[in-house]
Amino acid sequence: MSFLADLLSTVFERRYRGAAGPDPAGRTIQELSTDLLGASGEVSGMALARHILDRYAGKEDDEKLAFFQFMTTDLGIDADAVRSALDAFQSAPDKASYRAFLAASEPRRQELARRLNQVPGATGKLVGMRKDLLRLADKAPELHMVDLDFRHLFASWFNRGFLVLRPISWESPADILDKIIAYEAVHAFDSWDDLRRRLQPEDRRCFAFFHPAMPSEPLIFVQVALTRGVPGSVQTLLADDRDVLPAGQADTAVFYSISNCQDGLAGVSFGNSLIKQVAADLSRQLPGLGTFVTLSPIPGLNGWLRTQAKDLPMDTAEHRRSTAAHYLLRAKRPDGKPCDPVTRFHLGNGALVHAVHADADLSDKGLAQSGGVMVNYLYDLSLISQNHERYASAQDVVATPEVTALAQLAQAQDT
Amino acid sequence: MSFLADLLSTVFERRYRGAAGPDPAGRTIQELSTDLLGASGEVSGMALARHILDRYAGKEDDEKLAFFQFMTTDLGIDADAVRSALDAFQSAPDKASYRAFLAASEPRRQELARRLNQVPGATGKLVGMRKDLLRLADKAPELHMVDLDFRHLFASWFNRGFLVLRPISWESPADILDKIIAYEAVHAFDSWDDLRRRLQPEDRRCFAFFHPAMPSEPLIFVQVALTRGVPGSVQTLLADDRDVLPAGQADTAVFYSISNCQDGLAGVSFGNSLIKQVAADLSRQLPGLGTFVTLSPIPGLNGWLRTQAKDLPMDTAEHRRSTAAHYLLRAKRPDGKPCDPVTRFHLGNGALVHAVHADADLSDKGLAQSGGVMVNYLYDLSLISQNHERYASAQDVVATPEVTALAQLAQAQDT
Amino acid sequence: MSFLADLLSTVFERRYRGAAGPDPAGRTIQELSTDLLGASGEVSGMALARHILDRYAGKEDDEKLAFFQFMTTDLGIDADAVRSALDAFQSAPDKASYRAFLAASEPRRQELARRLNQVPGATGKLVGMRKDLLRLADKAPELHMVDLDFRHLFASWFNRGFLVLRPISWESPADILDKIIAYEAVHAFDSWDDLRRRLQPEDRRCFAFFHPAMPSEPLIFVQVALTRGVPGSVQTLLADDRDVLPAGQADTAVFYSISNCQDGLAGVSFGNSLIKQVAADLSRQLPGLGTFVTLSPIPGLNGWLRTQAKDLPMDTAEHRRSTAAHYLLRAKRPDGKPCDPVTRFHLGNGALVHAVHADADLSDKGLAQSGGVMVNYLYDLSLISQNHERYASAQDVVATPEVTALAQLAQAQDT
Amino acid sequence: MSFLADLLSTVFERRYRGAAGPDPAGRTIQELSTDLLGASGEVSGMALARHILDRYAGKEDDEKLAFFQFMTTDLGIDADAVRSALDAFQSAPDKASYRAFLAASEPRRQELARRLNQVPGATGKLVGMRKDLLRLADKAPELHMVDLDFRHLFASWFNRGFLVLRPISWESPADILDKIIAYEAVHAFDSWDDLRRRLQPEDRRCFAFFHPAMPSEPLIFVQVALTRGVPGSVQTLLADDRDVLPAGQADTAVFYSISNCQDGLAGVSFGNSLIKQVAADLSRQLPGLGTFVTLSPIPGLNGWLRTQAKDLPMDTAEHRRSTAAHYLLRAKRPDGKPCDPVTRFHLGNGALVHAVHADADLSDKGLAQSGGVMVNYLYDLSLISQNHERYASAQDVVATPEVTALAQLAQAQDT
Repeated sequence: MSFLADLLSTVFERRYRGAAGPDPAGRTIQELSTDLLGASGEVSGMALARHILDRYAGKEDDEKLAFFQFMTTDLGIDADAVRSALDAFQSAPDKASYRAFLAASEPRRQELARRLNQVPGATGKLVGMRKDLLRLADKAPELHMVDLDFRHLFASWFNRGFLVLRPISWESPADILDKIIAYEAVHAFDSWDDLRRRLQPEDRRCFAFFHPAMPSEPLIFVQVALTRGVPGSVQTLLADDRDVLPAGQADTAVFYSISNCQDGLAGVSFGNSLIKQVAADLSRQLPGLGTFVTLSPIPGLNGWLRTQAKDLPMDTAEHRRSTAAHYLLRAKRPDGKPCDPVTRFHLGNGALVHAVHADADLSDKGLAQSGGVMVNYLYDLSLISQNHERYASAQDVVATPEVTALAQLAQAQDT
Repeated sequence: MSFLADLLSTVFERRYRGAAGPDPAGRTIQELSTDLLGASGEVSGMALARHILDRYAGKEDDEKLAFFQFMTTDLGIDADAVRSALDAFQSAPDKASYRAFLAASEPRRQELARRLNQVPGATGKLVGMRKDLLRLADKAPELHMVDLDFRHLFASWFNRGFLVLRPISWESPADILDKIIAYEAVHAFDSWDDLRRRLQPEDRRCFAFFHPAMPSEPLIFVQVALTRGVPGSVQTLLADDRDVLPAGQADTAVFYSISNCQDGLAGVSFGNSLIKQVAADLSRQLPGLGTFVTLSPIPGLNGWLRTQAKDLPMDTAEHRRSTAAHYLLRAKRPDGKPCDPVTRFHLGNGALVHAVHADADLSDKGLAQSGGVMVNYLYDLSLISQNHERYASAQDVVATPEVTALAQLAQAQDT
Repeated sequence: MSFLADLLSTVFERRYRGAAGPDPAGRTIQELSTDLLGASGEVSGMALARHILDRYAGKEDDEKLAFFQFMTTDLGIDADAVRSALDAFQSAPDKASYRAFLAASEPRRQELARRLNQVPGATGKLVGMRKDLLRLADKAPELHMVDLDFRHLFASWFNRGFLVLRPISWESPADILDKIIAYEAVHAFDSWDDLRRRLQPEDRRCFAFFHPAMPSEPLIFVQVALTRGVPGSVQTLLADDRDVLPAGQADTAVFYSISNCQDGLAGVSFGNSLIKQVAADLSRQLPGLGTFVTLSPIPGLNGWLRTQAKDLPMDTAEHRRSTAAHYLLRAKRPDGKPCDPVTRFHLGNGALVHAVHADADLSDKGLAQSGGVMVNYLYDLSLISQNHERYASAQDVVATPEVTALAQLAQAQDT
Repeated sequence: MSFLADLLSTVFERRYRGAAGPDPAGRTIQELSTDLLGASGEVSGMALARHILDRYAGKEDDEKLAFFQFMTTDLGIDADAVRSALDAFQSAPDKASYRAFLAASEPRRQELARRLNQVPGATGKLVGMRKDLLRLADKAPELHMVDLDFRHLFASWFNRGFLVLRPISWESPADILDKIIAYEAVHAFDSWDDLRRRLQPEDRRCFAFFHPAMPSEPLIFVQVALTRGVPGSVQTLLADDRDVLPAGQADTAVFYSISNCQDGLAGVSFGNSLIKQVAADLSRQLPGLGTFVTLSPIPGLNGWLRTQAKDLPMDTAEHRRSTAAHYLLRAKRPDGKPCDPVTRFHLGNGALVHAVHADADLSDKGLAQSGGVMVNYLYDLSLISQNHERYASAQDVVATPEVTALAQLAQAQDT
């Protein structure tokens, strides 16, 4: 058999296959879980894990809730056991006492998740399980404790070093493109033709992170337009009748849409490295690229204005721009961070506020959230560390002099 | 770009690339580690991690030891902090108090390892780091505590669900075959021709587990001979001039060599599922296969006899066989488990002792460790759970009546 | 670099890249062709070939016609030269005289096509060139001579042994699926969702032949439905709300659509082996399959009836069925072969007429061509040779007794 | 099923599988061939072709000879039929008369080869058949006529546009590397370690042409050393203890070995484009490369000197160099081309004689054929066309002034 056959079997192995039939012993999902954690779990773990995953898949919300509550109460830590292990370790720290402490301080539900994950293809099922958990935790806040354990495990499993960046193109498998259409969160796709228009031209690129255990599920993806100069409107950028720019002539890469795909991976961050790695890869392929910039929505602008009992001034474009600039640079949460979530994301990555544009997104959504105003965040690779430092230490929203001046104008107008 | 290009970039990403140059700030590896764990680690983590890995790679043993001791003392848990987090959690268990407890009870060196692992290709470096750690811990037993943390992380990262089983054949990449030659632990390869003889014929198979983050490093591999009937000697099995059996005519698959490849993954077990999965895969491909059996060494026989102030009786083959059977079934450690490590491995997997053969391995190594006696462990898929249960609960070494009779004969002879 | 990199470069090589700029010497396409056939063609052939292909791509029909006429008149055979080479060969047949004969009897335009084909990616361009040629030959029949040379070369290049059969699925690259939509000739796809419905369910399959030099261009594809029993209507077969049959429960594979994709490969036949190979592959994968059958249109029925000054009798379903059966079995061309082209195709492959169904295709097209009547051709692998023999030697249209009886009924009704 | 599965099936299809059993009719290979060419060949062609290929594989030389003689006498052209078809065509050239002429003028053995090639994996078998044919034609010169037909077909099938260039590395499949070892014709490999030394370092490259229908059989390969400056000795170039040059620092690519792999493809030339394409690919990857040069043997030097009743002067290195330069530039065959076959190959590609080195190959073979003298041929991409033109039109051996001066010195010394 050939190396290609190897790869094939790799892909096949990734498919989840359920148990051959129902559990002959008729155990509940809780009993199956206890058995999986027990001694017999070592040898018959695969079969037990498949029964649990199959059983879970067929459950209604109330049963899922009961299962998560079982995890909360029965598979948590035993505080007294932790305390005595800790005492023993502190009085005589050695391998044995440390091992006992590690065992006691980790809740058994983490081990349950690891044992479920033995089954090929189970990782995606567990991500789906956490999606349910987050939804159900709205009404049962104690489930958030279970969620912290899932998140802890996922942060380890979905560590950046395990992810692979893949270009998404019109030659990618249709089942993956189907998911790109479904998950696009910023500028929705109308149709497959619309998708083709954003993938096929040589001035358009798309990249996604994948995890090897979920090979047909993108985790996060970014869409990129190659342009000459920094664009000021999404209508122009995505116009159906625009002239395609030969990729070699582009000087700017515009990250105009970033979408997370997996609700079950909420809070496990990898968007940060996505932009930076795509920027690095693109500049290697296309040495003419000098500027890496976003064209971003300002989702919180109108909401914030309402909390200030104001409206976005619709008299002049400049007035809208200065109001938006003020919001971006000055509107802060109690913890001192910017109100706008997109601002927090890009500033946290070391970007700076580069320019603010009126009439830049005239879609219903764009008008509703920010009166059509958009913003460019600039990724200047030589300034990223320094910007991040200023943001992290002093919550400084670094901006160009032009945007800073706009923000000051707003304050002046306001008084 | 095509889907193949995606795969390619996947493979390229897996290659570790070091930092572009030395750390401009001239920090020590300890300082770099502290910075990586600090706030700035979020944005400049990749660069810091590369500096640490590069620096580590260039160190001598005494410096490595110092680095591990830094991990032991500076990056462990703070028992008082754990205790107060635990108290707070116990008095008011909620998301916040649980999060605080999780944070306090996990030593910071685990987070250090996860952050180092952000760098593509770093996983193999960390496995290598643990290999050093285990070696150095011989003289500095406190390092075993650090090792428990590595092992904990690796058990999560190298979870069965993340591994891929790949056939190894004469069409596999030479760099991988090179490692198969290097790692073969049971019956060493003389040469590439010898390797070819054990891979190319249709009655020979080889399978290995790989982790996607270390795609050219096998983790463990098993060599299989397809035969008619259960073989009783490795000389016959591996004879250069044997007739090749058409695969479709085989009724038995013989697992005649299992080799772990990564010292840095010691104690992270996946051999268990390897044999069972290979058996399942082979029986799907070759429906004629009905028997899955090993031809295994008895590495502890002569050593154990010496502890009993005895020698292996060389008078008759039967005498040697019965002595070996007695050893396999009756010689137990203080914890009640069999003395022989290979017996522990296969019985723990649910196999049973099927037959004992004299003059079965006449190599120097085979004669030295067991006077040439070998054993077949049988994997009867319908009995695996039950065997395992008996072994796990009562440390019963399940054996065929024939082997049990042999063991009784030895006892009779002895008295 | 890895084996995957090799594959990648393979795919990249297949892309046609034009010449770096226009021909510096400003030659016409005819002059370039003459130079490519001349001595300097050996070393600068690639560049010349690229100039010719680029130049051709930019031409209007009248210029293309001129180019083909140049091929007809200037690059044909020289009958006198052939005759004297033939005389020399006949009087002294040896290597030299035979070589001279071969050289003289092959028109130089064949060598021109081979030299153009040196350029990676040129094969698809040449197939496109023949598509133009066939179109233009309608008005310039002398071009058919050039076409015979193209067809001769393509029959050699697209030899069955060079083609690869690939499954087409919802996981195939979107650019290939796009072509499947475009080329489907029998039951058109409404949309990508329609495509998904015919690819994704486990009781649907699709297979295409590809040539390695045109890796993203299917040559011909067949769509297959897995069913229990032989279906009698395309509405039922393709109903949106049908229950999906687990593939393992199917006993019948229905070839319900076969589409040729490349006009430029007209007359180069590979459909024959497509069905037989798909049948063989499917029966290996799904041992439960016992029947391989088509559900085929009868495109010539109504046209033939008109030539007989008749209409399809719409009174009863049976009347329509018997009329169609009569047409299929008895309506013959002057050369003795069946009038219906689909009948000729399947009978020529060794199939037999299995059953005739009224109201089986109620689409506009189905009603227009055959009043909704369809036919199953059965591929009974054990009878294929024998059926073919009867058809080839005696133009017998082999049919089941039931269909034969239906045809007789029609004759009876007619009189 | 996935795209990778497609590729897999591609590879599997390429494997030749013989007929299921012997021909039930017990026909001779000649009868089988006649049937394959006849009507029934259309539908049962695959089975017939497999029987013929299987039967051929089992034959001794005398039987093979008989089969080739059958091809010569029974499957050649019928001169009278050709003549009458030619007459008909000449008097009324149209599609029908041209088709008849084409049919008559092509010997039926060409069609036989095409029909044998329908079977997946047959292409390699046919290449092997021609290898036999060439060997047997030594004693039966009439077989050369059959050979011309094979060569004609192979030139079409192995057209440059169908070949793929693949890098060969230490990560290539072992079965392919095994063939590289076997086929290396210039500097033999001692062992797999020797192979690794010539593949793994970053200043070593290897590239081969493959045909998709023979995916594990290299057709021709070239080995490349990356150096600083043009090397003057193979000992230095291949020294085990040399320092590896970082690839990015190289300014010169040295083609130090080119080996044809398939005797059955003799006379079907692709070496020409190999060097030029490798040069183009390398200069894209490594922009620092400016010089593309060979380090070539002079296989004909000592043989030619013997025909001149001379010996290579061993007094001084310069004397040897000037004698070699004289030979390279002045020693011509009756047809005016250089005596040395390697010179003919590279000059025909448009290279020029760059430098001549004494003591450059001190192996037994190097000393025997040219007293250790070697030569660099330079591929100056800007001069290739011009050099080729001079060589093709005037048989000029283009050389640097230094080599020309050396050659003149020899003439002076000689008189």
